[in-house]
Amino acid sequence: QNRGRMLISCPDRPGIVAAVSKFFSEQSANIVQSDQYSMDPEGGMFFMRIEFDLDNLANRLEGLKKHFGTIAESFMMDWSMHLAARKKKLAILVSKEDHCLLELLWQWQAGDLYADIEMVISNHEDMREQVESFGIPYYYVPVTADTKKEAEQKHLELISGKVDTIILARYMQIISPYFLQHYPNQIINIHHSFLPAFVGGKPYAQAYNRGVKLIGATAHYVTEELDGGPIIEQDVQRVSHRDNVDELKRIGRHIERIVLARAVKWHVEDRILVYQNKTVVFV
Amino acid sequence: QNRGRMLISCPDRPGIVAAVSKFFSEQSANIVQSDQYSMDPEGGMFFMRIEFDLDNLANRLEGLKKHFGTIAESFMMDWSMHLAARKKKLAILVSKEDHCLLELLWQWQAGDLYADIEMVISNHEDMREQVESFGIPYYYVPVTADTKKEAEQKHLELISGKVDTIILARYMQIISPYFLQHYPNQIINIHHSFLPAFVGGKPYAQAYNRGVKLIGATAHYVTEELDGGPIIEQDVQRVSHRDNVDELKRIGRHIERIVLARAVKWHVEDRILVYQNKTVVFV
Amino acid sequence: QNRGRMLISCPDRPGIVAAVSKFFSEQSANIVQSDQYSMDPEGGMFFMRIEFDLDNLANRLEGLKKHFGTIAESFMMDWSMHLAARKKKLAILVSKEDHCLLELLWQWQAGDLYADIEMVISNHEDMREQVESFGIPYYYVPVTADTKKEAEQKHLELISGKVDTIILARYMQIISPYFLQHYPNQIINIHHSFLPAFVGGKPYAQAYNRGVKLIGATAHYVTEELDGGPIIEQDVQRVSHRDNVDELKRIGRHIERIVLARAVKWHVEDRILVYQNKTVVFV
Amino acid sequence: QNRGRMLISCPDRPGIVAAVSKFFSEQSANIVQSDQYSMDPEGGMFFMRIEFDLDNLANRLEGLKKHFGTIAESFMMDWSMHLAARKKKLAILVSKEDHCLLELLWQWQAGDLYADIEMVISNHEDMREQVESFGIPYYYVPVTADTKKEAEQKHLELISGKVDTIILARYMQIISPYFLQHYPNQIINIHHSFLPAFVGGKPYAQAYNRGVKLIGATAHYVTEELDGGPIIEQDVQRVSHRDNVDELKRIGRHIERIVLARAVKWHVEDRILVYQNKTVVFV
Repeated sequence: QNRGRMLISCPDRPGIVAAVSKFFSEQSANIVQSDQYSMDPEGGMFFMRIEFDLDNLANRLEGLKKHFGTIAESFMMDWSMHLAARKKKLAILVSKEDHCLLELLWQWQAGDLYADIEMVISNHEDMREQVESFGIPYYYVPVTADTKKEAEQKHLELISGKVDTIILARYMQIISPYFLQHYPNQIINIHHSFLPAFVGGKPYAQAYNRGVKLIGATAHYVTEELDGGPIIEQDVQRVSHRDNVDELKRIGRHIERIVLARAVKWHVEDRILVYQNKTVVFV
Repeated sequence: QNRGRMLISCPDRPGIVAAVSKFFSEQSANIVQSDQYSMDPEGGMFFMRIEFDLDNLANRLEGLKKHFGTIAESFMMDWSMHLAARKKKLAILVSKEDHCLLELLWQWQAGDLYADIEMVISNHEDMREQVESFGIPYYYVPVTADTKKEAEQKHLELISGKVDTIILARYMQIISPYFLQHYPNQIINIHHSFLPAFVGGKPYAQAYNRGVKLIGATAHYVTEELDGGPIIEQDVQRVSHRDNVDELKRIGRHIERIVLARAVKWHVEDRILVYQNKTVVFV
Repeated sequence: QNRGRMLISCPDRPGIVAAVSKFFSEQSANIVQSDQYSMDPEGGMFFMRIEFDLDNLANRLEGLKKHFGTIAESFMMDWSMHLAARKKKLAILVSKEDHCLLELLWQWQAGDLYADIEMVISNHEDMREQVESFGIPYYYVPVTADTKKEAEQKHLELISGKVDTIILARYMQIISPYFLQHYPNQIINIHHSFLPAFVGGKPYAQAYNRGVKLIGATAHYVTEELDGGPIIEQDVQRVSHRDNVDELKRIGRHIERIVLARAVKWHVEDRILVYQNKTVVFV
Repeated sequence: QNRGRMLISCPDRPGIVAAVSKFFSEQSANIVQSDQYSMDPEGGMFFMRIEFDLDNLANRLEGLKKHFGTIAESFMMDWSMHLAARKKKLAILVSKEDHCLLELLWQWQAGDLYADIEMVISNHEDMREQVESFGIPYYYVPVTADTKKEAEQKHLELISGKVDTIILARYMQIISPYFLQHYPNQIINIHHSFLPAFVGGKPYAQAYNRGVKLIGATAHYVTEELDGGPIIEQDVQRVSHRDNVDELKRIGRHIERIVLARAVKWHVEDRILVYQNKTVVFV
């Protein structure tokens, strides 16, 4: 209840850690975990993640942020401060394949995913029963070439004000730049290949044709460049000449759900910083 | 001494295994290991690898091949038969980076690589002493933009008649189509990325810029398409935002040498069949 | 529908493959996949797995078996022949942890586990609703120190004649020798450690205390020796000093479900042969 | 040249990070990397590793240490401070198997192992030539059941005052408690199994007999308990029923050399803290 988290990005220069530590010390907060990374002590970017304990944090958070503002300004920090107990609110978008969705629902139910799943939105009705059995609202928003814009408008209405983070759990529609600008670095997609290999459609068929010996999956933040956003997590599994495209898909489903679930977990625990087109992940 | 190996590729149809087994049985040969793979029992390709024991094989091998010809013809087989005791003869080509070469020399010395390393050829003098200390001839063949053709001619003279297999152990020159046609599926290259990601030059810099979370290496047969030949083996290792390009190279060196050594081992043990642009690897 | 599978173990000697191939050829069956392994061509054991296609196999299977008997006898074969289309019938036993059960139910629902799950039996009521939502019968059989024998008797009644294979999906009761003798090499357990490390209870606490850098899980056939039966599959995941016992359990749950699901899949596809206390797995 | 490193272990309590940061800030040192881990903010142990830059550090290090003493005392710290540029001095002990030694020599030559290898000591003459070709002194100290004590005395004479860290690179003799007390947490051994599985002799034969599906290696600090000291690093590789004991040894050699090299690298970079029988490794 009294645990807070802080993320900081700023140009590196001497004194950052000391200033931040002094701030927490003066507030009688105890730093229980601190991670940092400097791209280059001479003029590179500096990234930091802090977990701290402070009595009565829920009530003091706003004051704390205000006080920190002065330090942040002097170091030109891009920063955020969170109450760890405040769960992030997720919307999961899904099409017809259910494995990534089910993994998230299941980890959520097991208590391994500390977040609120506010809703599931799909362009198909297929998974309504399963999702509702978890007590989660299910919205069916059909999408056709002609109704793409209306569908996105409907999505925005559904999630607006209720959701921090959007998970594309094998949602097979491209998100418009208009939509993206409302949720910068807050939309996580799972791509079913080891990016940047096999960008675009049918990656398992591409992998089969190229005869690769490992297949993979990639979770990334969505940007305007298709399959080109900052990579959060990747993993692979060994395959052989015996595995045809269907078998690659079957194996791939396991990697996809593991990789997406890890990425979402790190996101909701404020472990990811984005800089340009890359992520810094403190795990 | 009496161990033989056989590789077969042919269109699948009923009776192949029976015909091959019967042949070996009639010759009083004992099949000690047999692997097979059918792309599709209905009209796909069929691949087979057999290890067999036969008394006095060294003297009987030519006769055995002759007898097998009739079966091979009736099934339209592409096939080869080898005396396991006859070591393949390798030439290793290398430029300035020594890690892949050293791994091969070392595994060879440890008895893990069952082959004769006939020579090392380099466009630099750097590794002469090290190679010669293993008792292996070292040839320095400089290559410039102008002398590329003469250099390849020199290579052909050096290896012609003495070498079965050519290993490009971080040899940073492109092999000409003229050279390639002399050694189809007999030239193995190590590419320092998880192909098809990061084709071409400076793959670690490309990987760093893209922010991937795993880096890899790929051993493949060399064809006219740059970094596009049949993949033999790949592996990856986890990296993080902390790893800069130099660190990626350091980590990559480990993967490269492991992956190349595995591919060469499989090749010299007649474990690889090539079909179109893919490999069937029986391990 | 016409696909059959055969498993053979026997002392190695010349002529086995030829005899088996000849048999299938004479029956006009087409061998589509064949794997074999010889521990030692001179007097070791020989193991073989064959997939074959034969028209009208369902009706001809019994005749085929009868014919094969003569060959089997002359080679002292331990063997079995299966109609691939005939699904194995499973009973899953579970206590309070649901992750291994759910993974199996889910893969079954996705069509990745080709078997019939006939029933789930538990010594707790907790998972009834979830299991029944899959349309699978759920039996609650409480077990106390005093009722252990009656509980096992009840289990035998429930499964007798209905089930081929029993999966202990984190079932926290020891199976009696009496029960085991009814299902030799047909009971699969998942142990939550990388056996033989951390045999017995609380393996994650043991792993934490020892400070290991990888944790694992092991699927094995159950024998009278606790955690000592033939190992089918194992896998591990990296952990660090940061992971306390709860975190090890969380990470472990992922490995456990993956490892158990793989083992069950191989078992129902007749890919596993047991010899003494080890398995030969043809994948 | 101006890079320093610091390792701290102490009981956790509020204010540690602030005090340490303030100290470095007052000395005009810039913290470029900081890692920390708290076993439990309420009364557990706290571990910290800092990399810092300070002008003219070589000359100021002693003064810095003196100043830090007061802080260290008030927090009951166990601590050390190192000049990063000062290489650790290693002695490598080896018996007849050369792969772990060669990997270290090779990484050292490639510049990947930042340390001085002062000497190699062996109870066999076998590797003299190879070691001396790297310009490293080689001492032959035979060991028999009767001369064990004299041999250790000879070792101590050779290394005393010249060496910080002793690497047992497949040195097949047990180190006496007397010797150990001179080098607490400074002797690194590679054990050829995934400890605690297969403690003691012939671990690959044990692994083969148990039928495990993965084999591993473990690097650990040596303590009086055989194969029981704090684990630094472990890794595994998949094996199958096809791999006999010799094949397990061959595969194992790769894991052993990789695992030992990683552990040594972390040790010489001051990345390892030992607490009770476990390690905290900041990588």
